[in-house]
Amino acid sequence: MDEKAIINLIIKKVGHPAFPISKIGDDVAVIPFEKQSLVISSDMLVYSTDVPPGMNYSQIARKSIVMSVSDLSSKGVIPYGVLVSLGITRSMKRSDIESLIDGFSSASNDFGVRIVGGDVNETSELIITCSMFGFSDSIVKRGGAHPNESVVVSGPFGLPASGLKILLESAKADKRFKINALNSLYVPTPPFKLGVELHKSGIPTSSIDSSDGLAVSLYEISEQSGVCIRIDNIPVPDGLVQFAKTNNLVADELVLYGGEEYEIVWTIPDEKFGLANRIAKRMGRRLMPIGRTLSKPTGSVYLTDGGKNKRVERRGWMHLN
Amino acid sequence: MDEKAIINLIIKKVGHPAFPISKIGDDVAVIPFEKQSLVISSDMLVYSTDVPPGMNYSQIARKSIVMSVSDLSSKGVIPYGVLVSLGITRSMKRSDIESLIDGFSSASNDFGVRIVGGDVNETSELIITCSMFGFSDSIVKRGGAHPNESVVVSGPFGLPASGLKILLESAKADKRFKINALNSLYVPTPPFKLGVELHKSGIPTSSIDSSDGLAVSLYEISEQSGVCIRIDNIPVPDGLVQFAKTNNLVADELVLYGGEEYEIVWTIPDEKFGLANRIAKRMGRRLMPIGRTLSKPTGSVYLTDGGKNKRVERRGWMHLN
Repeated sequence: MDEKAIINLIIKKVGHPAFPISKIGDDVAVIPFEKQSLVISSDMLVYSTDVPPGMNYSQIARKSIVMSVSDLSSKGVIPYGVLVSLGITRSMKRSDIESLIDGFSSASNDFGVRIVGGDVNETSELIITCSMFGFSDSIVKRGGAHPNESVVVSGPFGLPASGLKILLESAKADKRFKINALNSLYVPTPPFKLGVELHKSGIPTSSIDSSDGLAVSLYEISEQSGVCIRIDNIPVPDGLVQFAKTNNLVADELVLYGGEEYEIVWTIPDEKFGLANRIAKRMGRRLMPIGRTLSKPTGSVYLTDGGKNKRVERRGWMHLN
Repeated sequence: MDEKAIINLIIKKVGHPAFPISKIGDDVAVIPFEKQSLVISSDMLVYSTDVPPGMNYSQIARKSIVMSVSDLSSKGVIPYGVLVSLGITRSMKRSDIESLIDGFSSASNDFGVRIVGGDVNETSELIITCSMFGFSDSIVKRGGAHPNESVVVSGPFGLPASGLKILLESAKADKRFKINALNSLYVPTPPFKLGVELHKSGIPTSSIDSSDGLAVSLYEISEQSGVCIRIDNIPVPDGLVQFAKTNNLVADELVLYGGEEYEIVWTIPDEKFGLANRIAKRMGRRLMPIGRTLSKPTGSVYLTDGGKNKRVERRGWMHLN
């Protein structure tokens, strides 16, 4: 059974009458509380599927925090605290564990998230589950997009997929591109403040993080919002076209179907794009408009390619093993 | 490095100035929020260390929920919701996964806790991290005991340790004792409603769950409260003395130093014991007074044995591998 099938089975069997799990559909759970809601997510980092070759323990710890920071901040929620459940292997040395803890410490500072608890266990491979939470009046949902809005991303896609090609399949790259590609894998940096600020401004109608890849993220928005998405400007990073050519790869494939991405995808009404972009610039980021929402066919994603519409496949979520 | 050493290193390095992790000391983190606090805990169940031979997948799922229910309810907090991070192995069959999900479903009903989210991963052994939370005005702490109070437990100890002796070392037992011992391992049942009701009544001055064993639990209370604990009536279950004799084991060892226990330990002022016991009886349970808190030596635990005081060792937390 694959992940989606298992999740569907869980939703079917475990749905609580007062809290149907199927209503969640976002990467976070929202629990109404007094004035604000508790927003919480849980992510398990698994050594054999989530850790690329060459990543050090400090970077592994950081990535486990990033996975959850990305969940919350893409929904516009400031991460408040995190519980870290550690599964340590017997072969890990004291220096490995210290490096891991240093990674938690610096990620905690970088993202302003307090480590408030957790537990330590012995496992046959390194496992880190982060349960991160924040408090918020509302979240940006996946299902809030309307037709005729701009589809906008926080940065280019495809560097992590290229990095994996370099690490796992010995793809060739010039020095600068290689550094960027590996850096995107080893030190992923979600635009977490931008996610929060845009939500605060009330601009985005929908949003999603992109850890399953751009194509899957766009499909989630199109399906849950009941719109079509047409991509006119595929967000290709500098050097990727050359990299693809050199290695006989298809650039669009790397951009659309790679995983390990930590950008945010939003839909934004046209008249608010200017304001959104000013907010982004103030934070040293830029928004990249990549396409538009259309009224139909709902739940579909297209790419304009030389005047023709090409269907984007609903796939992605590349694991490392 | 053992668990305690790793936790101490984490506390030293990751303590957040605004939220020093060392202040936690309980099995739960308490996050002040509007009127009430968010109370949250995270526990990882690991197949190789937490699953005894013969336990089925439905029982495994239930146990993972029980571990967290025990954390919260021993602190007097009603569990509200849980996020379940699953690590499934490639060799698990569809029927195994269905059995696992059935276990979550029935545990969710048994303990009234909503499964509100989580994620699914592939791991080299089965891993389940439960992050459970509730909302409360306060918790019963480990450090609230005073001298001259009753030390009280929710039931006898030693059945899980006996069950492990039966399963792992072929210890002999009569049919009835064997059923009780294995049942305590396969279907642990924390007195979760009693934990909540006693806290509501304001009776306990301190409390702790006992998953690391009775001795360690008593030490935690004595150390964090700055009292001495003297055990006068060791809580031995029916049949355990005979079981120990048959297998050349020491009964007190099984009671004090076994792990996998899901009872609660409280300290209670003498004049309130009658009321506490009436509350327990109303819920079909009984409180067992096992000893007293004394003013000194602080941080120590003794057992009266034929008029003599015998020092209890600070050990326990027996793992299955």
